Amino acid sequence: MNELELIQLLTRSLPGNASVVAGAGDDCAVLDLGLASEYVLFKTDAVVEGVHFTSGTAGERVGHKALGRCLSDIAAMAGEPTAALIAIGLPANYRPEYVASIYEGINALAKKFGVAIVGGETTTNPGHIFISVALIGKVEKDKAILRKGSRPSDAIFITGELGGSFQGKHLDFIPRITEARWLAASFPIHAMIDLSDGLAGDLRHLLGGTPVRHSLGEGGSSASPKTLGAELLSAAIPISRAAKLQAKAESSAKPPLLAALTDGEDFELLFTTSSKDAVPLLDAWKREFPNLRLTCIGKITTEPGLKIRDKQGLRALQATGYIHFPG
Amino acid sequence: MNELELIQLLTRSLPGNASVVAGAGDDCAVLDLGLASEYVLFKTDAVVEGVHFTSGTAGERVGHKALGRCLSDIAAMAGEPTAALIAIGLPANYRPEYVASIYEGINALAKKFGVAIVGGETTTNPGHIFISVALIGKVEKDKAILRKGSRPSDAIFITGELGGSFQGKHLDFIPRITEARWLAASFPIHAMIDLSDGLAGDLRHLLGGTPVRHSLGEGGSSASPKTLGAELLSAAIPISRAAKLQAKAESSAKPPLLAALTDGEDFELLFTTSSKDAVPLLDAWKREFPNLRLTCIGKITTEPGLKIRDKQGLRALQATGYIHFPG
Repeated sequence: MNELELIQLLTRSLPGNASVVAGAGDDCAVLDLGLASEYVLFKTDAVVEGVHFTSGTAGERVGHKALGRCLSDIAAMAGEPTAALIAIGLPANYRPEYVASIYEGINALAKKFGVAIVGGETTTNPGHIFISVALIGKVEKDKAILRKGSRPSDAIFITGELGGSFQGKHLDFIPRITEARWLAASFPIHAMIDLSDGLAGDLRHLLGGTPVRHSLGEGGSSASPKTLGAELLSAAIPISRAAKLQAKAESSAKPPLLAALTDGEDFELLFTTSSKDAVPLLDAWKREFPNLRLTCIGKITTEPGLKIRDKQGLRALQATGYIHFPG
Repeated sequence: MNELELIQLLTRSLPGNASVVAGAGDDCAVLDLGLASEYVLFKTDAVVEGVHFTSGTAGERVGHKALGRCLSDIAAMAGEPTAALIAIGLPANYRPEYVASIYEGINALAKKFGVAIVGGETTTNPGHIFISVALIGKVEKDKAILRKGSRPSDAIFITGELGGSFQGKHLDFIPRITEARWLAASFPIHAMIDLSDGLAGDLRHLLGGTPVRHSLGEGGSSASPKTLGAELLSAAIPISRAAKLQAKAESSAKPPLLAALTDGEDFELLFTTSSKDAVPLLDAWKREFPNLRLTCIGKITTEPGLKIRDKQGLRALQATGYIHFPG
């Protein structure tokens, strides 16, 4: 059983209640706690020593990543983060200064985005460090952007550049909160996600059809009413310098395009919007964020499935994250 | 460096913001998100295989404990739980049915208290299972009960019976949410905590003097303006059957009173209220909860420190949790 099958098993019949606007299956849970014009966003995520960071990594970067991952999910809903709790599991031989440096990384990133760190929990975790972050945020009810909502012929956009994150970016990326807030305020964004498993894997989450914003669900990821497809332009995919350098340096490394499609941990925003808004959005973006690339990489199609167009024509693209790309 | 010293180090200068009513240092964080009459409560807690439960434990009981610990903290603020997220770290050789049974335990307890499970995260944790729960709840602004707020000559009450929790209760305790809601609605409760580290350790958290309810703090556990003391009546401490049986069965086991004072994981409510309300409260409690013991175990004193009165007189009681009790 792989992780996806396990998650499907576990989220089959989760208990719900009247507060749930969106439960498992989106970047954050969306709750209606009774605020007049805002939803509350709720997210948890964990980083584990030896899995998400190596044992020699500077504590500040570990803390940055631990909080940054959750912030990136708040960004994907166009939300603003409010407060976080930190649960940290420590082996018996932990060094207090190292744990303090993890907190320094957390605190510095929290301050940057006005997030309060309101407590947490320390416990024992034999063998290695386990850091779990829980985050509360808010978003205006009419600005919340879910994964569902793409429409046929929508333009697909990506911020920044993809691939090679494990060369360093995964430890110091800046969550795209400012950019997402601006997007939601400036254009009708149909659907959005932050890239954590790689473009080829995560894009399929935006192909779920019409939005289910106000469904009071008995939890679980609600099935989408209609499945769409997507067509990417190979030449348009923005490939990071790290992915290119890695391909040059190591003969066994992934080709740069494959790295950009599947490496994961990019923490960039992937979103869709009406094709008529594509050019005005690109123009406005360049004025607002001159130092961050925004690229239209393809379009949503009515025919389900993921395809990529290159010199050899239009071909099916394997969608499940790290799976081999036949190019 | 022990856990308490580590926590003091980490919570020295946490970032705050205008939403924080109470940050690190109480049972839950208390946030003002803009609701007219309610605060939002926010809590995270973790259970680890080999630390909080043994590897042979039924998954349902593990899940019950994982969520129950957080619910108990919401109870300690007299709050109502709303929604939870589950982050679970799994070793490579995990059994999906076992993970599913953990979720069954979580879901069953969630349904009992109307809590929505709105998603979470699965990740790798080499060697053993790590379950981190994050919980959101709400409480009326004028009913929130903090750890601070005890006054001199207040009566000290405890629900249920103490000690021997590791014989089984720690895996199937019922969080005292219903009881706490009733208490807050019926009597002016001054301060409250749920017992997790043992009466002798946790009682000191209620000796912080006047409440600091609306302090907008730069995080951290705010120093109490005045430190109080407490005097317990040895004969009044309600000792559980499990603690008594264990003392009888094993010559090396703690004496029952010591077990009741220090075993930990009782998950009962410890609270203080004006001495004039003590008898009416006990009478009303017996009518409302005829099957759950409530006991007045002592009083708050102006002189700092923890004391216990038995046949030999009044003696100092070591307060730091599992430390030897000289009786």
